[in-house]
This record gives sequence, C-alpha cells and structure tokens, in this order.
Amino acid sequence: MSDLYVVVMAGGSGERFWPLSTPRHPKQFPPLLNGRSFFQHTVERAATLVGRDRVLVATRRDLLPIVREQLPGFPVEQCVLEPVGRDTAACIGLAALTLERRAPGARMLVTPSDHYIAPFHAFEETIRHGLTLLDRVDGLVTLGIPPTRPETGYGYILAGDAVPAHPAARRCARFTEKPDRTTAERFVADGRYYWNSGIFLWAAASILAAMARHLPEHWGLLSRLRDALGAADEVQVLDAVFPQMPRVSVDVGVLERDTDVYMIPATFSWDDVGAWSALGRILPPDEWGNSVVGRHIHRESHGCVIYATTRPIATIGLQNVVVVETPEGILVCPADRAQEVKEIARMLREADR
Amino acid sequence: MSDLYVVVMAGGSGERFWPLSTPRHPKQFPPLLNGRSFFQHTVERAATLVGRDRVLVATRRDLLPIVREQLPGFPVEQCVLEPVGRDTAACIGLAALTLERRAPGARMLVTPSDHYIAPFHAFEETIRHGLTLLDRVDGLVTLGIPPTRPETGYGYILAGDAVPAHPAARRCARFTEKPDRTTAERFVADGRYYWNSGIFLWAAASILAAMARHLPEHWGLLSRLRDALGAADEVQVLDAVFPQMPRVSVDVGVLERDTDVYMIPATFSWDDVGAWSALGRILPPDEWGNSVVGRHIHRESHGCVIYATTRPIATIGLQNVVVVETPEGILVCPADRAQEVKEIARMLREADR
Repeated sequence: MSDLYVVVMAGGSGERFWPLSTPRHPKQFPPLLNGRSFFQHTVERAATLVGRDRVLVATRRDLLPIVREQLPGFPVEQCVLEPVGRDTAACIGLAALTLERRAPGARMLVTPSDHYIAPFHAFEETIRHGLTLLDRVDGLVTLGIPPTRPETGYGYILAGDAVPAHPAARRCARFTEKPDRTTAERFVADGRYYWNSGIFLWAAASILAAMARHLPEHWGLLSRLRDALGAADEVQVLDAVFPQMPRVSVDVGVLERDTDVYMIPATFSWDDVGAWSALGRILPPDEWGNSVVGRHIHRESHGCVIYATTRPIATIGLQNVVVVETPEGILVCPADRAQEVKEIARMLREADR
Repeated sequence: MSDLYVVVMAGGSGERFWPLSTPRHPKQFPPLLNGRSFFQHTVERAATLVGRDRVLVATRRDLLPIVREQLPGFPVEQCVLEPVGRDTAACIGLAALTLERRAPGARMLVTPSDHYIAPFHAFEETIRHGLTLLDRVDGLVTLGIPPTRPETGYGYILAGDAVPAHPAARRCARFTEKPDRTTAERFVADGRYYWNSGIFLWAAASILAAMARHLPEHWGLLSRLRDALGAADEVQVLDAVFPQMPRVSVDVGVLERDTDVYMIPATFSWDDVGAWSALGRILPPDEWGNSVVGRHIHRESHGCVIYATTRPIATIGLQNVVVVETPEGILVCPADRAQEVKEIARMLREADR
C-alpha cells in the first residue's frame, strides 16, 4: 500500500440524527460508538491502513475546529478545506488535485466518515483486492456491499462481467439510485446487485481525467484551482472558485457515465448509519434487546434505541422505539420511521426562521 | 359561609409525576395547568370561596419555601406546619386543633391541593349543600363524585339512606378502598356508588371528637400538641410529638368507623390528577388530540400527553403516549400505563442510593 492515501470526507449536514446532529455539528462527530465519533473511528481505521501521515481529511472550513478537537495534533496541512459544501464530485476533485500535487502518481481511497465498518482485517483485505485490481486496470473502483435487506435509500450496482485474472472484481453494469420498494426487493432476491458503499479507490490522476471527460464545468473550475494550490492567494481563489462548482455527486457525475468502472465486493460488515435505527444494528443490545447509550431505566421495553446525553431516559412498555435526549431536544419515534427525523429537523428549522 | 375555613393539604410525595415531581417537589407544585400549579389553583379557589384570611395551608415544614414562593404574601401564620408527613388523620387533627383554638366553633372544608375542580360555581354550590347539611346534623361530610369509569385506584362510597329534609345528602353506607377491576365495573354499573373525593366538610370540634372516639393514639398525641399550641416551645413539642403519629388516613381511621358520616354528591367536574394520563382529560387537546405543555413538533401523533419544560419534544407516529421532559429526566410511556411511573421513580431512587 506504499502509494495509497486515504481521503476521509467529513462534510455533510446530518439532519437525520436530530437532535444530536445539527448543520453545525453533523452526524460524523458525536460520540455514537464506544464513546468516539464515526469520524474518529474512520480516521483511526485509515491511519492503521496507510499511516497517519497519508490520511487527508476533506471537510468544510467551518468544521475545522471540530476536526481539530476530535483529532488532537492532526496536521492542518493534511486537511483539504472546502469553503462551502458542493457534494462529492467537487470535494473529491479538490482532494485529488491536492494529492496529485503532493505525491504525483498516488492512489487514493475515498471514504465517507460516517459509516460503520468492521472488522478491520476484512476492510484491509477488501482494499488489497482493490489495489490488485488497479495494478491490472486503469479504472475507477467502488466497493460493493452484498445487500441484506430491500433498502430503498441506497444506490444499487448491477455486477457485470468478471475481470480476467482477478478473483473478486466485476465491472459495474448499471447503477440504480434509490429504487422503489418492489425494485429493491427484486434486486436483493436477484443476487447480482450490490449496495454502492460510496467508498472509492483509484489513482488521483484517473479520477481527474474522468472528471475532465464527464464534468467539463467542474474541470474548468478545478483547473483554475490547480494553478492556485500552494500560491499566496490560494484561499482567496478557493473562496472565489469553489462555490461555483455544481452540486453533483461523484456517483452520478462520473461513475454512472464512465466505462471503466469496477466493483469489489466488500468482505466487511458495513452500515451507512443513515438514521437512528442503525444504532440498533451496530450497538450490542442489552439483555432486553435495547441498544443503549447513556442511562436507561425501564419496565418491559424491548428492541429500543436509547440515546441519553445528560439525563436519564425512562420507558414503560415500548417496543422498537427510538428515544433520544440531547440539549437540542427530545425525539421519540418508531424505529421503522427513523428516516422521517429529517422532516422534524426541517420543521424546526422553518419554525425558528 | 361566615364560619367556614378551608384547610388546603399540601404535603404528599408525588412520585407518579416523575420526572416533574420529586419527593422534594411534589406534584401539587409544578405549573401543570395554565402556567399555574394545582396548589395555586386550589388556594385561589378556597380564597374565592371564603376569603384569603380564612384559608389555612397544611404542609410539611420543608415544603414551606415552595409554598411561600407560590403564594407571595401569604401569611406564614396561616400555615400549619408538620415536621414530617404522617398521612391525613394526623394532618387534619393538627389543623383542626389550630383552627378550633383560633376560631372556636369554626367549620372546616378540608381539600387536597392536587385535584382538578371546575367550574367554580358548581364547587361553591356543592359546598353550600354540605353546609346546609351541617346546619341540620352534627356529623362528618365527604364529597362524593359520580364515577365515570371503573377506576381501581380510588375509594368508593355506597350511598345509603337519604337525609330528611335535605335534597342531596346521603348517609355513607359503606366504604370500599381500591376495588379490583370487576368490582369497580359493578360499582359503576350499580349507580349507588360514588368516588370518595377526599374533600371533607365538618366542624373542627366534630372531627376532633371523632378522633377521640376512633383514634386514641392520635388523640393522646393531639392533646399534648393542643397544650403546646401558641406556647414558646410549640415547635419543639411538635418536633417531639408529631413524628409519633401513626400513618393513618382520615378515611380509614375515622370515616369508615364512625356512624354519623354523610356524603354530598359533587356537581363539579373532578379529577384527582393521579398520573400523567390525567392531563389528557384536563388540558384542552390541540387539533390532533394531543394535550401539550411546552413545545411539540410532530408527524402523525394523536392522543398524546406532551410536557416539555425547556426543550422541544419531537414525536413521529405516536398514539396515546405520554412524553415528559424535565431537568430530572425523560419519560416515555403509554397513557394506560402511567400509573407505573411511581415504579420508575422507585427504581431510580434505589439505584441512586
């Protein structure tokens, strides 16, 4: 892994974890797992994989204080700071430029910072498979997750042709973003579909070349940024140029359009921790089947997700309910409706306007 | 009502309203209704009935600071202060002694301070009926509530013989405390049973005489207290004697044993506010059928009782659930299990021991 760098993307808004996450404190930062944030877990995993000096953190500049607080001693030079959030194509473009300038020919693993991944050795094995593939083909690689339920909130990849002389890799035949329930059920039953993890592997030069092919507007702006990187007016140019980037994800803008896109099936357990109910899948349940952070006193409550920051939460006779207490507010909702929490956050934001 | 005084009993422990009420702040004191406490509503109702200078507040001495805070300017001389709580027989005995000493021949209305009563004119009408009865008989009067549901947590009175020349009053034929469900259903269907409101009307001298007959241990101690009232060592004697009072309610200790006990059916709406679910009966519901104090943001939630002190409460898809937020903690429980909240309070107390 001698030429591999990891880019940890730590932007995001995180409304689905209200009242814990807020636009100023997205969900990758609160200590959701074992007293540490998913961001901290992600950077630690990356550092174990490639060494801390080859980890870059790409984030919004306004989130830098939280990043420094959560990663004491982490060099600010290893932070790629976006003036504003402009989705993953712009973020990854800027990170690839930065990396290619510092370490020409480098390969980069791009990972969100709010995912659950375990165990480490399986993660490492999957990355090794990906690097072996990149030794043979010059392409773009995404990690695919074997689906375990008909999730309608994810992107699906149809695995296509096998890759000669590589046991695991497949070409990506088709991407389907957020299918309806029936389609998702068909995908899961079919067996050839994988969830798109949003974890990518490629040479920095390759993703930049692909952006030049598929995202000309991004490419024009990235070219202006490239000339400014390291110059005295770097921040001013970033502030002027970066906000002009269209809001496009790298999946939609590049991967779905390119022909040399591959998928490596992940051998690790994965969860995108997209809603409070995910904690029920990740945290080990107590003897009553409740996943608890903080203090919980109850009678006959089962299958609940309980998250208390400063006060005890008492429940009586609840099944599969999420209860969260933070200084921002209290949330009570059935686990299977936890996706609607973003609507609550929206209602509050509009009411407070 | 020229010789009528009102004794507002404001002791109590109030664990059924955790996390709002605590042993140090019983349920009569938080602002549950229209921004004011049931205690404040009760004293105001009493003052409207007889004038503020004929209202006595009987409470534990340690609750006096809360009483003074809630009743600015209320004379401490009108407070009957128990060193410790010893149930209603002891409380009423001490209040009757105090009253008989200050206004010999006075009649007293004794009322808990944590009940919901409305409208005032019906309350006043019921009290007038009671006073008319006391003009004719020398006895003990309790107000009876026509039962509206088979409540198992209340005491029931079987109405007996009518009283000559009084249109409303009945003799109490039998008291039944906390019947089982089947019995309660039979009582409600029968039509001759009333809930015992715990609101009493009698001459101070009459209840003292009844205590002398039925509660000799209380009476012995009360006699020692009578000699000390107004003396320099009043507080010391109270501290020495009052804690020796047996814990007996006036219902069990006196009313169930005496022969001259009468019942006046109440014409007012009444609720003993015995649990959080009672707020659903008392507070006017919003357009979704939720009874709300504080800030509530929700999707498809109906029939809930929401009580927020400092933070918003957000709910999704809840029906008939109680959600409470206070600095003490968070409570989530189905309305029909709100009686179990005292078990939660007990579990917390034992865990914190």
